[in-house]
Amino acid sequence: MTGMPYIYGKNAVIEALEDCNRNFNKILISENVHNDDKIETIKSLAKSRDIVFQFVKKEKLNQLVPNTQHQGVIAHVSPITYKDLDEFINENRNSYAPIVIADGIEDSHNLGAIIRSSVCAGVKGIIIPSRRGVLINSTVEKTSAGAVNKISVIKLNSLVNAVQKLKENNYWVIASDHHAEDNYYDIDYTGMNFALIMGAEHAGISKSLLKLADFKVKIPMLTNFNSLNVSNAAAIILFESVKQSLNSKK
Amino acid sequence: MTGMPYIYGKNAVIEALEDCNRNFNKILISENVHNDDKIETIKSLAKSRDIVFQFVKKEKLNQLVPNTQHQGVIAHVSPITYKDLDEFINENRNSYAPIVIADGIEDSHNLGAIIRSSVCAGVKGIIIPSRRGVLINSTVEKTSAGAVNKISVIKLNSLVNAVQKLKENNYWVIASDHHAEDNYYDIDYTGMNFALIMGAEHAGISKSLLKLADFKVKIPMLTNFNSLNVSNAAAIILFESVKQSLNSKK
Repeated sequence: MTGMPYIYGKNAVIEALEDCNRNFNKILISENVHNDDKIETIKSLAKSRDIVFQFVKKEKLNQLVPNTQHQGVIAHVSPITYKDLDEFINENRNSYAPIVIADGIEDSHNLGAIIRSSVCAGVKGIIIPSRRGVLINSTVEKTSAGAVNKISVIKLNSLVNAVQKLKENNYWVIASDHHAEDNYYDIDYTGMNFALIMGAEHAGISKSLLKLADFKVKIPMLTNFNSLNVSNAAAIILFESVKQSLNSKK
Repeated sequence: MTGMPYIYGKNAVIEALEDCNRNFNKILISENVHNDDKIETIKSLAKSRDIVFQFVKKEKLNQLVPNTQHQGVIAHVSPITYKDLDEFINENRNSYAPIVIADGIEDSHNLGAIIRSSVCAGVKGIIIPSRRGVLINSTVEKTSAGAVNKISVIKLNSLVNAVQKLKENNYWVIASDHHAEDNYYDIDYTGMNFALIMGAEHAGISKSLLKLADFKVKIPMLTNFNSLNVSNAAAIILFESVKQSLNSKK
């Protein structure tokens, strides 16, 4: 099956196996792999879905995905299915469905980590631009620990249109910005759904998006060292929202 | 000069240039590099320190550090100087000097991001084990955006001895642990210095270290997805300490 990407790493493969929308060609497992709980889970999920798995020499895996930590498992699998924004909004109209907008993240590790933290923080959708930054690739899947399968991934040409549509549908739009006056912990994340915009590693958030934000927030620091890694910044803000959400239910 | 490692990336090179303990052999800059503020900073710092810089073909850089985002700048530089724990404690006896203990982090990107967030959060020292996990390498330097030069890096054979010594010197020891009962935001980080232990990506914190902790804290989530990336988890906890510290000064 050509056109199918490889994904690798134990968690990435397990989460893809649990997502019935992903079609597998086959799974390759290293002969030398330590047979732990996760490998057992992979084998039993593969059996239950009638997916072939083969034991192969470690060198074969190294050849397929060079310079990566594949953890002895590679799967040949259909790409994730991107979601339509209108569909997402309709499906989540009456529920808690925060969104993260990744405005042109360039590093696959960063996008993967943002998606992982987003899922842990109860975020339901991630919006990425079609033509800037990385798309969902094997490294993003691996770094997300398979979280790409637990969130709606929405890929759009115009993030400006997306933000406008979200605002029309009662989302608060929050932009993470060094130059903001408000601290991230001074705003209330619990009143209604929010969409958090995180900017690219070097360029930050596009001016056109920044203009549309209802709130701009910064993360105050104790030193004047340049700035935080973007996935760490996203995690800090998202988990403030989690804390507020848990405290408001008490 | 043999034995000198390469470091790469604009921020990593700038921060190393600003640290007079690092000796440079030379700096290589790509002929095609966009001549932005950071490249200007590198050239002027190099001039002021009498360090040679050369313009070379981009292919030469790609050859020296394959498969990396070198951003058009590589420097041939002495390794960072590790610090002695006793010396660190003596120098910081009467000041705010939190520490992060990275208990065998395996991924260079994660260790780099932890160090970057630590510096932003006012952490003064990072302790890593000599024989497990990654040491400070080029990828750590790059991912830290040069923050390795702004913190005392302490490398020790026994983290247990280190924790005991910190406790004798009035540090609160906090362990980040999934199974903890307390939430990370329920403890007070401001009363005295703290040492935060973060566990390795898969193994978590060693049992012997966990036993010594004064507090164990978890990061509550809104879903039951496996867990956070370790650098994101560290950032969430450290920036709770920053928030408390800023609020206590009000």
